Amino acid sequence: MRELSFISKIRARAARMPGSRVVKGIGDDCAVVLPEKGAKLLLTTDSLAEGTHFNRCYFKPWEIGARAMAVNISDICAMGGVPRYALVSIGFSKKEKQGFVDSVYEGLMRYAENYGIELIGGDTVGSSVFFLSVTLAGESKRGRLLMRDGAKKGDLLFTTGMLGDSYAGLLTLKRKGREKLSAFEYLPVKKHLVPLPRYMEGRLLAESGYVTSCIDISDGLVNDCMQLSRESGCGMIIEAQSVPVSHSAGMIAQSRRENAVDYALYGGEDFELLFTVPKSKEAHFMNFMSSSGVPVFCIGRVTGGRSVKIRRGKSLENPEEGRIWNHF
Amino acid sequence: MRELSFISKIRARAARMPGSRVVKGIGDDCAVVLPEKGAKLLLTTDSLAEGTHFNRCYFKPWEIGARAMAVNISDICAMGGVPRYALVSIGFSKKEKQGFVDSVYEGLMRYAENYGIELIGGDTVGSSVFFLSVTLAGESKRGRLLMRDGAKKGDLLFTTGMLGDSYAGLLTLKRKGREKLSAFEYLPVKKHLVPLPRYMEGRLLAESGYVTSCIDISDGLVNDCMQLSRESGCGMIIEAQSVPVSHSAGMIAQSRRENAVDYALYGGEDFELLFTVPKSKEAHFMNFMSSSGVPVFCIGRVTGGRSVKIRRGKSLENPEEGRIWNHF
Repeated sequence: MRELSFISKIRARAARMPGSRVVKGIGDDCAVVLPEKGAKLLLTTDSLAEGTHFNRCYFKPWEIGARAMAVNISDICAMGGVPRYALVSIGFSKKEKQGFVDSVYEGLMRYAENYGIELIGGDTVGSSVFFLSVTLAGESKRGRLLMRDGAKKGDLLFTTGMLGDSYAGLLTLKRKGREKLSAFEYLPVKKHLVPLPRYMEGRLLAESGYVTSCIDISDGLVNDCMQLSRESGCGMIIEAQSVPVSHSAGMIAQSRRENAVDYALYGGEDFELLFTVPKSKEAHFMNFMSSSGVPVFCIGRVTGGRSVKIRRGKSLENPEEGRIWNHF
Repeated sequence: MRELSFISKIRARAARMPGSRVVKGIGDDCAVVLPEKGAKLLLTTDSLAEGTHFNRCYFKPWEIGARAMAVNISDICAMGGVPRYALVSIGFSKKEKQGFVDSVYEGLMRYAENYGIELIGGDTVGSSVFFLSVTLAGESKRGRLLMRDGAKKGDLLFTTGMLGDSYAGLLTLKRKGREKLSAFEYLPVKKHLVPLPRYMEGRLLAESGYVTSCIDISDGLVNDCMQLSRESGCGMIIEAQSVPVSHSAGMIAQSRRENAVDYALYGGEDFELLFTVPKSKEAHFMNFMSSSGVPVFCIGRVTGGRSVKIRRGKSLENPEEGRIWNHF
């Protein structure tokens, strides 16, 4: 009866939000919710498996849960939606310590609550490898949805924040673990462990009405540019010298005699938003965003053709095939 | 780029249903659908992990996919809803044969299509153990929802079909595999491999308006009775001699000198519906169901107290703790 008592615990812990539209949460065959009138429903799912996506040496249990929630929230934000309801499937071996599983859940639920998300269902299964599968339902009412397929030749390419930090953090973790981190190492490590989804940014981009395409940068700038290009049927040029790189990532790269811009281009898991805006709307868009206090960085433009190129100084490079992010 | 080509293949294969309300399917950060006006949204998720839920010696790859879909459909049906949209997370090792993964998906998608379900999203991740995590969204417009918590003292307890077959099938598979099955072994084995969710039955039960509580029997009759009891705050008596057991299960049990009724009580994974109807509505309910051609079996009644008991002949037994189904 271990499964049952675990579910009872989660169920007692799952909080209803004020104004909740949940008719039935955990404890029935399905969860039941009342969709908001006129809203579109967004659905996304992302899984994390031990060994592939996280390593217990680096991650505290609550961070595994928080991270699983964060990457799903990021997907909803990248469409300009509001995350609402989560379902969590968790697989673990019967030899697993209950304290570990409890902490993963605690991280997951606390993170969800911060974003007003209700945990409404899930499944616990036996598995020799620990995995977490989160499905998130969101809604979009106001503003247009941010799709991947609307970029047009002549649009400008933007991002919401510093890139390469997550990869710099991972390198730091691999080299020295979590202990004795210097001030400049702390932030990239934090960003790698539990990314901060661009919640307000996504909604603002959708409400602005100027954004023609958008994606969250989970697989590295180059890879996600290639996704936007493919879906929109256009090419893109990334201006390497315009890509925002943090001081921390710069320091970490320098200590390894590497280039922090490469971390930004190929590193992945920064979960900033990458999006396009027509050149003709640039001024209006920049006004709208700066009045909201949200920084955005122009890092390139949309071209004809189908390929993604990187301009470094005077040379126009092709992406390095071998450095493209792959979860396998 | 293996993940990408795999996803392209799935995306090309994912069929839109006539009258589809899918705004965006596979290929963006989220899937987007337009909920039907006035409908409640049902959400459920169920995972299957290799070693725990299936064994490659017994299951053909397509059956693993079909089974994962079936158990989720069953959850939507047990609430009286109509399944609509599926998201699938799949975890497999890079050493896995692509043909295996393709076949799992093909089984999953063909099964989904049979029920008018659209595959709208998912995730593929590296994992040393093969797992499948399916999330299904359904809708309920007409009729009341079938919850677990409405059973009242005096209600009658019903099921939609034969119980114990799935367990008898599993025993047969373990003893002799899939080859050279006799006629009476074939059906239980089939039912174990790919259960048939009670799609029409669930909708009819909801439309009848007579059903006070309902659950699908995934963990065995006794265990799921205990769930209904717990959620409704009442007791139940199962009349062992009224539990419908197939000729096949009877033959298999006999050959092992076991009792097929025990398979029905404790076996699990039959995915029939278990539900309650007030005694005063029995005649109307039976009329309604028989005019639809759907058989139902009265197998007990709801009592005061909180415990589930089994009447065998003249003795009233408690459930055998050691035989209660546990996925761990």
